[in-house]
Amino acid sequence: MEVIVPFSTDRPKSRLSDALSPDERSAFARAMLDDVLDAVAAAGGEPRVLATDAVDADRPVTVDDRPLTAAVNAALDARLGADGDESDADGPPEPVAVVMADLALATPDAVERLFAAGRDAEVAMVPGRGGGTNAFVASHPEFRVDYHGASYLDHRDIAAEVGASFAAVDSHRLGTDVDEPDDLAEVLIHGEGRAAAWLREAGFALDASEGRVAVVRE
Amino acid sequence: MEVIVPFSTDRPKSRLSDALSPDERSAFARAMLDDVLDAVAAAGGEPRVLATDAVDADRPVTVDDRPLTAAVNAALDARLGADGDESDADGPPEPVAVVMADLALATPDAVERLFAAGRDAEVAMVPGRGGGTNAFVASHPEFRVDYHGASYLDHRDIAAEVGASFAAVDSHRLGTDVDEPDDLAEVLIHGEGRAAAWLREAGFALDASEGRVAVVRE
Repeated sequence: MEVIVPFSTDRPKSRLSDALSPDERSAFARAMLDDVLDAVAAAGGEPRVLATDAVDADRPVTVDDRPLTAAVNAALDARLGADGDESDADGPPEPVAVVMADLALATPDAVERLFAAGRDAEVAMVPGRGGGTNAFVASHPEFRVDYHGASYLDHRDIAAEVGASFAAVDSHRLGTDVDEPDDLAEVLIHGEGRAAAWLREAGFALDASEGRVAVVRE
Repeated sequence: MEVIVPFSTDRPKSRLSDALSPDERSAFARAMLDDVLDAVAAAGGEPRVLATDAVDADRPVTVDDRPLTAAVNAALDARLGADGDESDADGPPEPVAVVMADLALATPDAVERLFAAGRDAEVAMVPGRGGGTNAFVASHPEFRVDYHGASYLDHRDIAAEVGASFAAVDSHRLGTDVDEPDDLAEVLIHGEGRAAAWLREAGFALDASEGRVAVVRE
């Protein structure tokens, strides 16, 4: 299954600016991207980076400098068929996946669960904490995205409007997009890849002194 | 499978005190407990409330006013065998589950995944956001809990120390314990039971005006 991984090269991870400098945020974002690409490939997917500017990666890269929604919808148009016109198709489109680049807890097992759900339903989706859309598989020709606001609920509505069967995938790993300082604790607790190693090398450690575990920088 | 659901009747949900009055916190905690008990029963489990004081419920209730760790370990002693002494046992103990009472997003499907993992591994565990232990199934006679701090990592270590096979269960629904105001958004996005209905009736609604969705009270 082709798996599109959108990646912004421009001011990544601005909500981590209290914890990391701009250069550090770029390096950390890149470590997370590499972890996601590895998990996708290990799950049998064929990852393709959809970047806002050139990226030096050993995976295929498509550059599209439009906002996320427009760039992802252009990719869906190209793969699922523009305008939902199935008249000249030989059958339902091949499923295509879109997986965000900041899912630093992604494992091959979790990605395989997403793929399996996307073979059973025309739209299978992993909600992110806070109502975002962290990953999905679509095979319905008319499904398109709108990432503004609480996109998970909007995407569920869009799937219903176009008559696509829908499945939610219940995953803490894929549901954790790393945007805010509290998310760094999740990376240190569960991460096994480059992003977790990067954080540890940068001096971050878990602080269990009160309530939920937080991070401290040494 | 017997499923122990610890429930504190004393000052529940204090970290929600900025959002809810003491009486409201009690009512909301009780709505979450009932949602959890229903999900457990619908998944084929036999729920038992382990409460710090008397609770009026239509499920079996055990009262134990000790702190959480001591009360849960007493329950494990009674079911898995004290001191890990298997000498007079007829085989491995029946698995027993412990599921927290504030998992307002719990569904029968998610609980079934926990049960299935607990049949394959001697300790199967759902980490909570922030490194807590939201639910587990244990069948190893020597596994015991220590809920202080980042208990998920500690429990993984304890399982390794006693030689129990371990499985992590990757669930956003069971991984979301509702402790803090941001967690209320998850209940409104995903909840289908009494707790979500209670929040809506109390005037809470989603606010998608910036970043992750938050809640506002009308």
